[in-house]
Amino acid sequence: MTYCVGIKLNAGLVFLSDSRTNAGVDHISTFRKMIVYERANDRFMVLLTAGNLSISQSVREILQVEQLKDPEGGEPITIWNARSMFDAARVLGQAVRRVYDRDAAALKHAGVEFNISMIFGGQIKGEGMRLFSVYSAGNFIEATPETPYFQIGESKYGKPVLDRVLTPDTPLDEAAKCALVSMDSTMKSNLSVGPPLDLVVYEANRYQTDRLVCIDMSNPYYRMLHSSWGQKLREVFDSLEDPVWDDAHTDTPLKVADSQNKPLKKITRPEEKLI
Amino acid sequence: MTYCVGIKLNAGLVFLSDSRTNAGVDHISTFRKMIVYERANDRFMVLLTAGNLSISQSVREILQVEQLKDPEGGEPITIWNARSMFDAARVLGQAVRRVYDRDAAALKHAGVEFNISMIFGGQIKGEGMRLFSVYSAGNFIEATPETPYFQIGESKYGKPVLDRVLTPDTPLDEAAKCALVSMDSTMKSNLSVGPPLDLVVYEANRYQTDRLVCIDMSNPYYRMLHSSWGQKLREVFDSLEDPVWDDAHTDTPLKVADSQNKPLKKITRPEEKLI
Repeated sequence: MTYCVGIKLNAGLVFLSDSRTNAGVDHISTFRKMIVYERANDRFMVLLTAGNLSISQSVREILQVEQLKDPEGGEPITIWNARSMFDAARVLGQAVRRVYDRDAAALKHAGVEFNISMIFGGQIKGEGMRLFSVYSAGNFIEATPETPYFQIGESKYGKPVLDRVLTPDTPLDEAAKCALVSMDSTMKSNLSVGPPLDLVVYEANRYQTDRLVCIDMSNPYYRMLHSSWGQKLREVFDSLEDPVWDDAHTDTPLKVADSQNKPLKKITRPEEKLI
Repeated sequence: MTYCVGIKLNAGLVFLSDSRTNAGVDHISTFRKMIVYERANDRFMVLLTAGNLSISQSVREILQVEQLKDPEGGEPITIWNARSMFDAARVLGQAVRRVYDRDAAALKHAGVEFNISMIFGGQIKGEGMRLFSVYSAGNFIEATPETPYFQIGESKYGKPVLDRVLTPDTPLDEAAKCALVSMDSTMKSNLSVGPPLDLVVYEANRYQTDRLVCIDMSNPYYRMLHSSWGQKLREVFDSLEDPVWDDAHTDTPLKVADSQNKPLKKITRPEEKLI
């Protein structure tokens, strides 16, 4: 499986991906799922892929040379000359459809679903940063201030912390930390997501970045995050009052006289009917 | 959807269920998913159900009267005379198969999968407490000290905290708190799981319980847990050092000279090939 997250903030963009792939638990390998497209002072784009690896790799290969017909009859649009991230995302969508036309039928005969999902974001000079979630059909949606992040792959374990922390005003490094905590929770609960991790942090209007790192389990910052988060989470948990069943002796009884609190009816004899 | 968790500890059992069902987001209702079977000083059993509601309700109805043939030719085995939780689980499994025989074909014609999953646990006098996870086929597995809990329904959001906290030695009320935090994270990230919550805490060798409560959002303890957990989680998150990219000024640099840390190759020109 896979877990990737892309975050769009006012300050910039954050991308994080794991690198474990598995075709069954007995066939686990390491493949990078992040690729960065950069032309200094012109455009910076990051693509994260999840799903069938043969499809992902084909899309990445084709994306290099994919051309979209220009409606105004100008030169074909590629990710390298697109004037907007929207157009670049359309080129990506067409690359996906090209792979679909080439492989989907054969995959279907083999009982394999045409399954790929992508996060594609960045900035092209002349417009602001943009972040897209691209689907198997080549269609896509764009992140908005209300929803500043996208996840692909094993997204559920790591979602609560993102929901609690992220807003468009979140600083870049704090968002990077949040993504790493989200990844840490996912790796703790799901074996199919694993290191090394690829992290890219992009600062708005730079069109390049040097904040690009591959993190393995020996990375001091990740080790600190992993142990501190687990330990402090436990401390917070312990600091919370346990439920008290006798409401005479606490401000926060579990049982209250609230009329809506109807305890379950117990069934004490076979003859008795359900509620 | 649904989220239910059942926990088996040395001290006793904890069961928690939400009560939201949805057939599409425009058809959301409230149904209790927990039912308690109790005969004082003889047996205490709890059943949690997830999946298709018509199947769940049929199983609960049939379970009341379901009889399993006794191999030794004695009187038929029911959940009310079974001498072990294992036999009671077999009665439940047969009830599921009866509903399957009755409804599965018609459901299939309607394009509906025969989908039900259950957690069934408790204690019958003469043996220790037992906890089972029962599947659509009527087969089941039993919790062990290495895996002291089962989840059904939307299990992923709330799994990390269970993995971090629960062991067989966890005290009962602490486990109840853990289940409620797990439920809180799930409800925060998934609309299809919702209140009121049904919580049952069973103390070993009691064969009954008065720790049985329906918790809605006005419950003081749940309100405290919900706000404190969110707030303190945020405090812990803020207390963790942000990543520092210049490893000269920190003990935990994000970038290290570790040879295994190969940053991604950037693609800077269309001609350039992928890694």
